[in-house]
Amino acid sequence: MSRQTLLERRERLLGQRMPLFYSEPVHIVRGEGIYLYDASGKQYMDMYNNVPCVGHANPRVVAAMQTQAGTLNVHSRYLHEAILDYTERLTGLHAECLSRAVFCCTGTEASEIALLMARAATGGRGIICSDSGYHGNSTEVRRLSVARRDPQGNPEIRTIPYPQCYRPIDAAASESELTELYLERVHEAIADFDRHDIPFAGMFVCSLLVNEGLPDIPAGFMSRAAEIVREAGGVFIADEVQAGFCRSGRWWGYQTSGFEPDIVTMGKPMGAGMPIAGVVARPGLVDAFREKTGYFNTFASSPLQAAVGMAVLDELEDREILDNVVAVGGYLRAALERLQAEYECMGDVRGHGLAIAVDWVSDRESKKPDRRGVAEVVNRLKDKGFLTGSAGSLGNVLKLRPPLVFSKDNADAFLAAFSEIMQDIHG
Amino acid sequence: MSRQTLLERRERLLGQRMPLFYSEPVHIVRGEGIYLYDASGKQYMDMYNNVPCVGHANPRVVAAMQTQAGTLNVHSRYLHEAILDYTERLTGLHAECLSRAVFCCTGTEASEIALLMARAATGGRGIICSDSGYHGNSTEVRRLSVARRDPQGNPEIRTIPYPQCYRPIDAAASESELTELYLERVHEAIADFDRHDIPFAGMFVCSLLVNEGLPDIPAGFMSRAAEIVREAGGVFIADEVQAGFCRSGRWWGYQTSGFEPDIVTMGKPMGAGMPIAGVVARPGLVDAFREKTGYFNTFASSPLQAAVGMAVLDELEDREILDNVVAVGGYLRAALERLQAEYECMGDVRGHGLAIAVDWVSDRESKKPDRRGVAEVVNRLKDKGFLTGSAGSLGNVLKLRPPLVFSKDNADAFLAAFSEIMQDIHG
Repeated sequence: MSRQTLLERRERLLGQRMPLFYSEPVHIVRGEGIYLYDASGKQYMDMYNNVPCVGHANPRVVAAMQTQAGTLNVHSRYLHEAILDYTERLTGLHAECLSRAVFCCTGTEASEIALLMARAATGGRGIICSDSGYHGNSTEVRRLSVARRDPQGNPEIRTIPYPQCYRPIDAAASESELTELYLERVHEAIADFDRHDIPFAGMFVCSLLVNEGLPDIPAGFMSRAAEIVREAGGVFIADEVQAGFCRSGRWWGYQTSGFEPDIVTMGKPMGAGMPIAGVVARPGLVDAFREKTGYFNTFASSPLQAAVGMAVLDELEDREILDNVVAVGGYLRAALERLQAEYECMGDVRGHGLAIAVDWVSDRESKKPDRRGVAEVVNRLKDKGFLTGSAGSLGNVLKLRPPLVFSKDNADAFLAAFSEIMQDIHG
Repeated sequence: MSRQTLLERRERLLGQRMPLFYSEPVHIVRGEGIYLYDASGKQYMDMYNNVPCVGHANPRVVAAMQTQAGTLNVHSRYLHEAILDYTERLTGLHAECLSRAVFCCTGTEASEIALLMARAATGGRGIICSDSGYHGNSTEVRRLSVARRDPQGNPEIRTIPYPQCYRPIDAAASESELTELYLERVHEAIADFDRHDIPFAGMFVCSLLVNEGLPDIPAGFMSRAAEIVREAGGVFIADEVQAGFCRSGRWWGYQTSGFEPDIVTMGKPMGAGMPIAGVVARPGLVDAFREKTGYFNTFASSPLQAAVGMAVLDELEDREILDNVVAVGGYLRAALERLQAEYECMGDVRGHGLAIAVDWVSDRESKKPDRRGVAEVVNRLKDKGFLTGSAGSLGNVLKLRPPLVFSKDNADAFLAAFSEIMQDIHG
């Protein structure tokens, strides 16, 4: 079936404006490890997808899914051991106080649970979030994303400019001054809730500010923001849907960013493609949530979720993927930093582990974001067989986020193609 | 591991008050067809679970899951044929105007999409729902369920008493008078939105009022309510998460209840245990939704969802399950009606296809709901190896809702056990 026919059917059946990548979309039919293949047999190296963290069509994950689905797949109002074993193992990977879990199916549902939990436990309503984050697509969770555009419509949300060192709120400030300036915004948001008689519930941020564009966060901001929030009676929620499961070179983004959350949301790579998501939190918070909501999720906390989630943890641990992320991520980033010296447009190279961002600019001095420049590179990389994407609050950030089994050889192949494209454009 | 140890671990890891069935919960380890097995090897006939509609551990569904997960499981921003084939087939089973789909992972997410769609398309906010329904667990969707208890807290929700013939709002009224009386409540709700300057968006109901207790709905109510809602500029949303996929003896509950919805939500049996849910609607509604929200769901519209969803449709059609539902459902219901003549407590036997309800009462005249009576029967049935549940707006309804592959022999086995229990209690 031709691409044009597929596009027409897609519009007729799924509607206009359903999101699609690339100016000439790819028609993918098969995946294996870090590779995807299109209908013509063309191979693409996947440097975009974080969900298949242990590789596309991972045999251990597929086998776990098949075995469990062929044995038992039922809801959680009967007793079953596997979900308890999985919860024990998962909470064991987190800070000790985060010892209870609630499971669901998507990152959006995890965000919903976190919001309901924060509000149930504190009795508050007001939530602080970043002005460029994304936490999901439900009516309530969307409010966190659209708050910047519609401040009047969201009396219970306050946004702060996301903390960053590259285009900071005060270009003349030192990093330590920036920390104070951004923390001041947290104080102001809390005071503003107070002024409007909106009891404070907490702050909700991605541990690595992935959607914001993976900025370097002024040192100490996250841990001190968490303290300020707790002192004001709120809870600090870390969104680890993108940041978690070894992505940053630590198990959790909050370890990389150096803070202790009260509630953690997880999703995407958790089931390597099976819809599994969830929340871990301090016991009192989980109990308050369960008491207040009577939460039940038909497909969650199931033997199937447990088996697949466990297989993902087995793969991550047995294949020592954390070490791979640190080694290959460091290697890739260092190579990009060398290229940065050659190309003006690579304004900033940053990130952690295998979450790497290149901030595309028209020139280094103005730091003017160059969306078209990065889009051209993303499309050219695709033509050469490398799937990447653009992201960030300004849409000008090259996002490199391959499955975590990405090797040094894979990085070399990417770097060769990337260098060729850069030379072709700028050489 | 003993039941007590499991219960303790469960509370420690998943928190207090996580929902659990039966006064002595069962520890299920395996499922096959209509049977579940506990850790001691005891066999239970499953007369509760609607998700595994084509039987527990259905081999065709498991094979489809394994094959697709081993081939490709990726998000929908690349082109893929399978989700288009599945959408074509699924919309082909619906009324012709419901020709576009949006996919997600859970019933809650489908309800979120329906609400966002209704509001995006109409520009309205106000939603009418029943006073005893359940449509999901997110912040916004929960409002539909808690509106009855917290009318002040939900300015955009109006509830109406759910239409029924057994305990109607006017005991002296004929069925046709009841239709008018309940419709009057719809008119009043619309007028009340108008009075409060809340633009009207639509009405959201389960097509069979399953959570309300599967009442006999006064003839013509649903189709005329849909007309009234559309005349007032709203859309009529049918929740088919429980009612759909042959459960009622028709493909969709809205066919059984005789009305035409503008938006339909689906879930539970759709993936026979894989988290698949979605919405079908008129093209303009889907386009308005996509334009307004930019909706994207990482795990949805995937090749895996398409393959599993297709396998479920294959099983339903190839095994002629609709015919089975009509035949066995009718047989079971007729037998229960015969038993009703013997037992005062079986106040009302009702339902459609393999969704059957028995309204438990202390006596026929007062129709006083008997929650304890039904709970005793549910627990005794469990001891005898039959899994059922209680439900309904008053918690006094015996809910019989087996996988759709339930046979006449299965019905006979259940009826024998049920009769024994009834004789033992009342004989």
